[in-house]
Amino acid sequence: MNSPDFDQQMMQRCLQLARQALGQTSPNPLVGSVIVQNGEIVGEGFHPKAGEPHAEIFALRQAQERAKGATVYVSLEPCNHYGRTPPCTDALIAAGVSKVVVGMVDPNPLVSGKGVEKLQESGIEVVVGVEESACRQLNEAFIHRILHHQPLGILKYAMTLDGKIAATTGHSAWITGTASRQLVHQVRAACDAVIVGGNTLRKDNPNLTTHEVAGVNPLRVVMSKTLDLPSEANLWQTDIASTLVITERTRNSKLQAQLRNRGVEVIELASVTPSGVMQLLYERGLSSVLWECGGTLAAQAIADGVIQKIMAFIAPKIIGGTIAPCPIGDLGLEKMTQALALQRVTLQQIDGDILIEGYL
Amino acid sequence: MNSPDFDQQMMQRCLQLARQALGQTSPNPLVGSVIVQNGEIVGEGFHPKAGEPHAEIFALRQAQERAKGATVYVSLEPCNHYGRTPPCTDALIAAGVSKVVVGMVDPNPLVSGKGVEKLQESGIEVVVGVEESACRQLNEAFIHRILHHQPLGILKYAMTLDGKIAATTGHSAWITGTASRQLVHQVRAACDAVIVGGNTLRKDNPNLTTHEVAGVNPLRVVMSKTLDLPSEANLWQTDIASTLVITERTRNSKLQAQLRNRGVEVIELASVTPSGVMQLLYERGLSSVLWECGGTLAAQAIADGVIQKIMAFIAPKIIGGTIAPCPIGDLGLEKMTQALALQRVTLQQIDGDILIEGYL
Repeated sequence: MNSPDFDQQMMQRCLQLARQALGQTSPNPLVGSVIVQNGEIVGEGFHPKAGEPHAEIFALRQAQERAKGATVYVSLEPCNHYGRTPPCTDALIAAGVSKVVVGMVDPNPLVSGKGVEKLQESGIEVVVGVEESACRQLNEAFIHRILHHQPLGILKYAMTLDGKIAATTGHSAWITGTASRQLVHQVRAACDAVIVGGNTLRKDNPNLTTHEVAGVNPLRVVMSKTLDLPSEANLWQTDIASTLVITERTRNSKLQAQLRNRGVEVIELASVTPSGVMQLLYERGLSSVLWECGGTLAAQAIADGVIQKIMAFIAPKIIGGTIAPCPIGDLGLEKMTQALALQRVTLQQIDGDILIEGYL
Repeated sequence: MNSPDFDQQMMQRCLQLARQALGQTSPNPLVGSVIVQNGEIVGEGFHPKAGEPHAEIFALRQAQERAKGATVYVSLEPCNHYGRTPPCTDALIAAGVSKVVVGMVDPNPLVSGKGVEKLQESGIEVVVGVEESACRQLNEAFIHRILHHQPLGILKYAMTLDGKIAATTGHSAWITGTASRQLVHQVRAACDAVIVGGNTLRKDNPNLTTHEVAGVNPLRVVMSKTLDLPSEANLWQTDIASTLVITERTRNSKLQAQLRNRGVEVIELASVTPSGVMQLLYERGLSSVLWECGGTLAAQAIADGVIQKIMAFIAPKIIGGTIAPCPIGDLGLEKMTQALALQRVTLQQIDGDILIEGYL
């Protein structure tokens, strides 16, 4: 019998292992697993990438015969079906483990609980729900994808304490400090794609990479109906990270050809809308999409229902300006009582800045 | 010998006593005093109002002969000059106290340290600087007044997480929750005046009182060059709190007469500017002025140099709107690098809202 504290500790270790693949597993979840024999860790593993074995399999491989009679900790319910890999339940049963501690059940209502059932039927003791909220938090994008058939949309912006994302001239470098910007790079590393509109590209010429942070770069997506974009831009450097431009049919075919020559993928849609773009990214297997756009596109995305989470970085400085750009454009809300309230709001100080996060 | 912990505890008690007169002592400071004999409090007092005796005198009166050989705690250096009352140093010496513990020296460079000196010359042991930063914080407005010959200007606003103080229609009731609004009432009770411009009066018809909070109402000040104001407004109800209207010469004399009839004071200036108004309020003996105005007047006040402190309440909700009103209008700053950085930033959660405070 391991104590509840020990169970929590082991599950936290699973989550730590799982995070090593941040931003690399979609459409699969992040999963970590630890095998414990007589209070000692004898195997560890995490799911590195779709198509590769699941976390439990790596942990079992490391534990070898010491898995027999052991307790297996895994942050997500073991699968019980043939996908690109055989069911993990079979592997656990075959290894002769005596107990499985599960962080959370599979969020897919079609298979949820089936893995637990199978293990129990084979006489294995199963405990479910250890560090469950942390497990759910880590895979919030995966869960959203499964339940809503859409990637999780995260709107990120940085503003001054008087609510501006740039001076009246449009100048915006920099609002927040180094620590906040590094955190944004980490958030990018954990996301599958980053989206901006044509305006942001023209004005800021962003890189949208993870910069010095370890971790893979997200797919960089540019939404531009008119494709009125410069032929030189940081986002066209596809040796650093992939770029996808989404535009309307037959727009600026000369630039389209130039971009394709430089390795930029260009997709033409009949109509370029936030929901259409998110549908496309869903079909490509993406789970989390970070919107780093200006106020106009941000408002369209909110109105289209594709933003679930907001990350607002606030720098304690005043820039002023009646017509200085704001983080969110028109939503058609006339009364303050119609404002969209954020849920599960959290607050953190990041060096001199403040990060407020919440869910719509 | 009392321990440093005990000294701090007694000084905190002095501050607690001092706060009982919040908003009522200007142009004088808030001061509290405690007299301790053999570890026991034998006298307490605070300065209730300009013209009334100082805190030490009330404490000495309560202590009577037990003040002899006692330790006196006082949050501000005892005065050593004849003002409206005789010097407190004389009273302390006459009472035969053996030790005086002072929170902070008098901020007035002309008399600073003189009280301490006088006590020491009379053989009384003096300790200076116990809980000094808390003492300075409590009297930040008084200190600013003394050093800069201007009241402390505090700009307070409430905005959504996307930086708006109203919807595009101007509708703004309410942005923050009950707890934040009650805190604003407390802040008003601690301030000597509250200022709005004509726009806020016309749009919001505010009361600007402390509502249910105990404590006196601040003077309500309306800045209006044109005096284009309604003849009925909550601020014209002078039985609840005093109202002062500042306008330019010969404007709307009909309304001026109506207002005076209702007990509203009307002052005509050659030019109505934030600095001119603050000068006038300084000359009236005010120490702290709360600006609860809209973005245009707020920007003018900042540009005029009369705002030292910012209190930004942020409600975790999104209203959107490209032309929705913002907390601070044009400051003429073109580059983000020119933004006015806040110092000594503090952060607190107030029920669902967030309060960010800092100094310009």
